[in-house]
Amino acid sequence: MVDSQNRRIVLANLPTGLPKTGDFRLEETPIPAPGANQVLIGVRYLSLDPYMRGVMSGAECYIRPTVLGGVIEGGTVGVVLLSNHTNFQEGDWVLSHSGWQTHDVAGAEELRKLDPTAAPVTTALGILGMPGFTAYSGLLTIGEPKPGQTVAVAAATGPVGSAVGQIAKIRGARTIGIAGGPTKVAYVKELGFDAALDHMAPDFGEQLAKACPSGIDIYFENVGGHVWDAVFPLLNTFARVVVCGLIAQYNDGGPFPGPDRLPLVMREVLSKRFRIQGLAEGDFADQRPAFFNTMGGWIREGKIKYREDIVDGLANAPEAFIGMLQGRNFGKLLVRVA
Amino acid sequence: MVDSQNRRIVLANLPTGLPKTGDFRLEETPIPAPGANQVLIGVRYLSLDPYMRGVMSGAECYIRPTVLGGVIEGGTVGVVLLSNHTNFQEGDWVLSHSGWQTHDVAGAEELRKLDPTAAPVTTALGILGMPGFTAYSGLLTIGEPKPGQTVAVAAATGPVGSAVGQIAKIRGARTIGIAGGPTKVAYVKELGFDAALDHMAPDFGEQLAKACPSGIDIYFENVGGHVWDAVFPLLNTFARVVVCGLIAQYNDGGPFPGPDRLPLVMREVLSKRFRIQGLAEGDFADQRPAFFNTMGGWIREGKIKYREDIVDGLANAPEAFIGMLQGRNFGKLLVRVA
Repeated sequence: MVDSQNRRIVLANLPTGLPKTGDFRLEETPIPAPGANQVLIGVRYLSLDPYMRGVMSGAECYIRPTVLGGVIEGGTVGVVLLSNHTNFQEGDWVLSHSGWQTHDVAGAEELRKLDPTAAPVTTALGILGMPGFTAYSGLLTIGEPKPGQTVAVAAATGPVGSAVGQIAKIRGARTIGIAGGPTKVAYVKELGFDAALDHMAPDFGEQLAKACPSGIDIYFENVGGHVWDAVFPLLNTFARVVVCGLIAQYNDGGPFPGPDRLPLVMREVLSKRFRIQGLAEGDFADQRPAFFNTMGGWIREGKIKYREDIVDGLANAPEAFIGMLQGRNFGKLLVRVA
Repeated sequence: MVDSQNRRIVLANLPTGLPKTGDFRLEETPIPAPGANQVLIGVRYLSLDPYMRGVMSGAECYIRPTVLGGVIEGGTVGVVLLSNHTNFQEGDWVLSHSGWQTHDVAGAEELRKLDPTAAPVTTALGILGMPGFTAYSGLLTIGEPKPGQTVAVAAATGPVGSAVGQIAKIRGARTIGIAGGPTKVAYVKELGFDAALDHMAPDFGEQLAKACPSGIDIYFENVGGHVWDAVFPLLNTFARVVVCGLIAQYNDGGPFPGPDRLPLVMREVLSKRFRIQGLAEGDFADQRPAFFNTMGGWIREGKIKYREDIVDGLANAPEAFIGMLQGRNFGKLLVRVA
């Protein structure tokens, strides 16, 4: 414990549209002291996730919002520096929700101890953490893939999408991965998707239709925007749309210019009996033990691959976050706190 | 069997917007003769239902479409005039899908024999038929009402909506019925809904918000349009939207003028984890025996009321149908074939 101060990044302005680095501010505050049954954490990795843009919008949300002047919220992996709880010792790795700062005090009940010999600790923020569990619970519980069905996945190189596609494949589905640009598309193929498509291609819609000769049974939505428009006409009767993210519209507050697409969507929901359902992994907490078990096994057996995109330095978190909202990350985006 | 000819109404034009009487044509054709194992039916009642507008649109649909020059399709109740099948005798009442005509030939497997002493035969087209089963299966299987939850129902005096509200009440939910005009609203109250609202009132949105202090857990959508706009902001986390009908937009082919409401709807689907699902009663065929049993019991016990709106004369079917699309019917709309 060499730092004398806690360095943290707070929300300086509620962002309008795409956040700017000026919407964030780096501050120094005294390192807090742990109270009874608490521990002091030295944060080592920040998880940067698209949902955090919504948390910064000031809108009502299922996640505790980041308030103006408050630390940017988010999942973190750190090391116990001081412990007042018998379950934790100095040097233990822990998963916490400390946000964008170098130090945090937390109660034992807010922490999960990590075993660095079982899996790299960063996986607790990715494939064995929130994104991986989002993929697992959303695909299996809401999507309900059956062997031979076609599963289309947006943002297929992202930590959620890449897991969705690989789990769907394990379950015997045909998988279509959608990503932006040739490098990501190449990685989608490497992940074993049956087809990999670039949504930036001018003929993306036709390519998608060609790649889905039997239509789409499950669409795992991470994006919205023009990817949705290409997927929508291909959805089969009884299609399930798992709405996990809408990164294409997070920066846009609306009103959105016409034409109004809702009447046509509702007409098709009715005539083809779609099920469109929102996903938050926290709703499936009872499935977590099964997830750790199953996903851990798949990773050990080499059936599931994952990719991390690690940026160095707390101070670089805002820029990395803004880049992610523009699709510039490649894999699960983490910040290594220096 | 006094008629010498079959009188039938065929589709003269694919309607654009609200159908006109000129889109229909009354014809006379020879009365067909039943073949082996077939029966000749004298049609007595036609069922007029909003879904039939979609069937006339030429669009792909889960129901066999009404083709240009063909008889308008629809559920019917009739009497067996001649029988070449041992299960049916002259004078038997049957449920058939004969459409808008006075006579029809059908195979035994296309018919359900009705017991006129158990319930009025017209109920086979309403509360004990397709609309009643739509309400039952859609509310219980997709809506999943829990005691104390709030269920809002559009077109609450219609054959589906009125049943939805009453079943929800039996299941312990709080029920909000939405209808057009004071006469219908008075009937919604008579049906036992906890609140009855007129969507034509200029302050309908505020009235609805006031009537739903705990928000809306289940919305049974029969209408679309401005009723949806009032309901949408009141939907609770985990709300279920049962999309059963969209009568407000059946006559409008689109494109629909902006603003585009879809991004906001998807955002809320995500942040509040709505489930929006289309309903067609045919998907729940395995629940029909339970439905007949349960709904029959509720009717005998006086727990479920229903209302029929009977128009006389085959020739008046087009006008009655057009009126229904404008909300002019009051209860389950039937045509008594003279």
